[in-house]
Amino acid sequence: VDEFEIIARLFRPLTNGAPEAFDLMDDAAAIPSRPGWDLVITKDAMVEGVHFLPDDPPYLVAQKLLRVNLSDLAAKAAEPYAYFLAAAWPASWDDARKTAFAAGLGKDQITFGLTLLGGDTVSTPGPLTVSATLLGWVPSGGMVKRSGAGEGDILFVSGAIGDGHLGLSTAQNQPLELSEAASGYLKNRYRLPSPRLELRETLRRYATAAADVSDGLIADAGHIGEASGLGVELDLARTPLSAAGRAWLERQSDPVAAMVRLATGGDDYEVVCTVRRSDAAAAVESAAAAGVALSEIGIMTSGRGLHVSFDRRPVDATVKGWTHR
Amino acid sequence: VDEFEIIARLFRPLTNGAPEAFDLMDDAAAIPSRPGWDLVITKDAMVEGVHFLPDDPPYLVAQKLLRVNLSDLAAKAAEPYAYFLAAAWPASWDDARKTAFAAGLGKDQITFGLTLLGGDTVSTPGPLTVSATLLGWVPSGGMVKRSGAGEGDILFVSGAIGDGHLGLSTAQNQPLELSEAASGYLKNRYRLPSPRLELRETLRRYATAAADVSDGLIADAGHIGEASGLGVELDLARTPLSAAGRAWLERQSDPVAAMVRLATGGDDYEVVCTVRRSDAAAAVESAAAAGVALSEIGIMTSGRGLHVSFDRRPVDATVKGWTHR
Repeated sequence: VDEFEIIARLFRPLTNGAPEAFDLMDDAAAIPSRPGWDLVITKDAMVEGVHFLPDDPPYLVAQKLLRVNLSDLAAKAAEPYAYFLAAAWPASWDDARKTAFAAGLGKDQITFGLTLLGGDTVSTPGPLTVSATLLGWVPSGGMVKRSGAGEGDILFVSGAIGDGHLGLSTAQNQPLELSEAASGYLKNRYRLPSPRLELRETLRRYATAAADVSDGLIADAGHIGEASGLGVELDLARTPLSAAGRAWLERQSDPVAAMVRLATGGDDYEVVCTVRRSDAAAAVESAAAAGVALSEIGIMTSGRGLHVSFDRRPVDATVKGWTHR
Repeated sequence: VDEFEIIARLFRPLTNGAPEAFDLMDDAAAIPSRPGWDLVITKDAMVEGVHFLPDDPPYLVAQKLLRVNLSDLAAKAAEPYAYFLAAAWPASWDDARKTAFAAGLGKDQITFGLTLLGGDTVSTPGPLTVSATLLGWVPSGGMVKRSGAGEGDILFVSGAIGDGHLGLSTAQNQPLELSEAASGYLKNRYRLPSPRLELRETLRRYATAAADVSDGLIADAGHIGEASGLGVELDLARTPLSAAGRAWLERQSDPVAAMVRLATGGDDYEVVCTVRRSDAAAAVESAAAAGVALSEIGIMTSGRGLHVSFDRRPVDATVKGWTHR
């Protein structure tokens, strides 16, 4: 099959006729300047067998690729704009799989207001390997960074932690002894994360620092501390869980070890952020109005390093979640 | 080895302290708007065993990754600015290899005026797979496209064609019966292409359309015709060759078939472009002043399709070079 034909049939429609993309006839796109705005750019890669399972449907893999990148934009308070795709197809990827992959991109483009502007498709003797470069807009100088936290700022996390990790375990057929409904919920949370783009206005207005939770809550909270030159006090007992997460936790003999597992598992794609104490109530209210729960989980201190506790008992949680896969 | 430590040690220095990169502490960069300029973005991926040989040194692979992308910027008359990297390392890639790869990036950053702004490093059970997203600047609306050629425009190509293909054959130990010096020259041209960035002012001033020659001269000239809605008359006998290329050609029993091979082999990273007949002499002079030879190889016609000849004899050259790898 001619790769140019595939680009024309599967990918050109994903440009929505955007003039920046030149119908994918060029090997480049041109983005006009937008005075008063910064272009936020993030790039994440995913490898079959590392970041998703070999039997995950191509449609969902495409959505996940966009969503893990959108999660970075969400944590930076950026408005999604466009993306570039690089896909290395294995020989086993026939036309039907590529078509399903493109359909997954098309679905999420509509959901999140994205347009494809370019990229590259190549063949590989190895596993499916994809990367996306996502572009978003923030008002000039308005990107929320990891490094902006101040001493005494309150540490918040959005939504629920641990679902991604439990969902992966479920998808790998590890016995979690949960109801079918709970298992299905968790598996879906693993396969199809929901980037917290609804938090944009809240973060722009109130966050002093933010990051998305991809490496694990403990690790990503720690990164904010490092980047801001502050210590972090994190109380694991306050980690927000979903109903399915709580159901799993209740079956564990060691709740502290179990909570450490959830807080280091990663793949949450929630947002961890810091807010001045005086803004904390307003930030929670603003997020709630956007449909997202913000839970207080800790505080930034003048010290250095990460201090994890569970109801005031210190917890050694440095074993996992600190290294990129 | 901790991936964060690797990022800090190998990649943070490559940001040159650019404020856009936030020391790679965030998962995103922020590019301020530059009124009067468009941001040109291109993204190419390379896979070990497909786009480079498994025993190619990491230092050169890194340089090639930047250069194949820079070649796209060169053909669009864009000034290189910055890049994002995604690297999927195989387990066999130890610290020494990663360090050599980063050193290759660092070398070419200096040569070409680039800065690393972000990206992602992951592990893979497959072959080394890398992609780069390159950013460049052009004056607003000034990107040279494939679609701008006019009827009667002269078709030019820069430098010499076929070295990349012959260099690959040499690197694969196919017997070309050339001198050691010629073999070494060709192998180096394959491993380390020279993007034609010197052509920027010439292209901005005179080119009606342009593309880089990565798929092969015939294919890439054809893409300009397609994108511009014109026919292309291409005389293979006028294809410029290097001394090593000519030496190889002289040993071939069928010079037409040999020339088709060179013009479909790809990996040239030269620039094929169209220029108004009235500008042709000035364009050649402008390129020469920048140190690059432009050779006239054909003409754009009112018809459709690609018509390849060799000294007026029609040549069937549609077999190879029309499909992306």
